[in-house]
Parts: sequence; C-alpha cells; structure tokens
Amino acid sequence: MVQLSDKVRELIDGKNFAHIATIMKDGSPQVTTVWIDRDGDTILINTAEGRVKERNLKRDPRIAISITKGDNQYSGAWIRGKVVGMTAEGAVEHINKLAKKYTGADKYQGYTPNEKRIVLRIEAQHITERL
Amino acid sequence: MVQLSDKVRELIDGKNFAHIATIMKDGSPQVTTVWIDRDGDTILINTAEGRVKERNLKRDPRIAISITKGDNQYSGAWIRGKVVGMTAEGAVEHINKLAKKYTGADKYQGYTPNEKRIVLRIEAQHITERL
Repeated sequence: MVQLSDKVRELIDGKNFAHIATIMKDGSPQVTTVWIDRDGDTILINTAEGRVKERNLKRDPRIAISITKGDNQYSGAWIRGKVVGMTAEGAVEHINKLAKKYTGADKYQGYTPNEKRIVLRIEAQHITERL
Repeated sequence: MVQLSDKVRELIDGKNFAHIATIMKDGSPQVTTVWIDRDGDTILINTAEGRVKERNLKRDPRIAISITKGDNQYSGAWIRGKVVGMTAEGAVEHINKLAKKYTGADKYQGYTPNEKRIVLRIEAQHITERL
C-alpha cells in the first residue's frame, strides 16, 4: 500500500470529482464520475449494490482513479489500486457526509427506496501526482 | 459504431477535459486526463508514442472515456469504445489545434524534442449521457 502525500490528501478532501475505471466482464474498461473521500490513507467511494462498477469490482477489485482540481484540471492525481473492502455498514451516513461536502445539503438527495448503499475501501498501489 | 448526439458533440467541442481508461498488460485499469476532439462521430485524442496509454491501446484497443463539463461536473457523457486508428500523420497539426482550443496558444507548449505525436481515432460503442 502506498501512502497519500499531504497534497493528495488535500485534493481528496476538497470538493473535487473523481473518475474511476473498473474492468467489465469481457476485460474492457468502464469509467464513471464519483464523489470521493478518505479515511487516513484509505480512499473511500460510495456506490449502490448492483451498479455496474460495484459488480465489476466484486469480480475484479483492481481500480484506477483520476482526480483533477475543479478549478485547474491540469492539476491532479492519478492512482492505481485495489478495493480491499466493500461494506454496507455506515454507508448511508457516509453518502450523507459526501452530500454535505459536495452539495451542502444535510442529506443525500439522490437516495432511492430499496437501494443498498455500499462503501468501497481502496488502497493505492501507484500514484502519479501533479499538484 | 454509435453516433454522437448533438449534445455530446457540443460537449466534446467545448473546452472540457476527458478521463480515459485503458487496460494495462496485467489486465488492470489505468486512467489519465486528456484533451479531446472529434472528426464527425469519430473521437480524437492526441498522445505520444511510448506513453503508457499508447502502449496499452496497441495491445488492447478497448477504451472508456468520461467527459464532464468544466462548469458542472454532474453533466457529462460516459463512453465505451475502441481505437480504430493510430496515426502520426497530421498529429503535430492536431496537437496545435487542441492547444489553441484549450489554452488559446497558437502552438502546443508541451512539445518535447524527439517525441512522436500520435492521433487516436476512436469509435463509440456505448454512450451514457446526462446533458
């Protein structure tokens, strides 16, 4: 596991979006845009059960993450790593925390009945940063 | 090949950044941030010979692209497709055209001696858009 530099921590703590790549069943890449957070050096992403990325990561935990600054997209970090945990525990509180950070709202507005939120815990293995 | 909607064309024509995912030799994903352009419905990305993404795409032409609006990152397009051409012809003129679009400069400032620019021609096979 690679530690995050202070600048990468600051990037993740900021209101910056991440683009995450996962592997489809046929081995091809898929990429989506997500909110991002961390717990120390562990990167956190919140998704819902059954989403393409969640199904992909259950099959193959390898993930790549591109995070650029909202106000300067030449500045950012590009991370390769793997999912080391997928948990429903605390996932609703976590999506509300992310909603607060990104939208200012106290609760996540996109929540739909019956969806089961999942927190992905990710360890970085290789980081390129330009910050 | 899937055609691009008018809104996706407009997104690509705008000064918006793309995050592209390719497949490493070991089957894991890699993602980088790039400038993007198009020729009709064919998506164009400019890279240099020997870069990780270029080597990855020579081995496996499958690619995924995430493009969000610079001023509203909830709005964007997520594309899966494949590289159908990699050519050095016109690639220097093309990187200068991209530099003009993104930086306003007449010539690409990041050019280094001996680097061989390459234009990737990409056909979309699946598009999710929120525009």
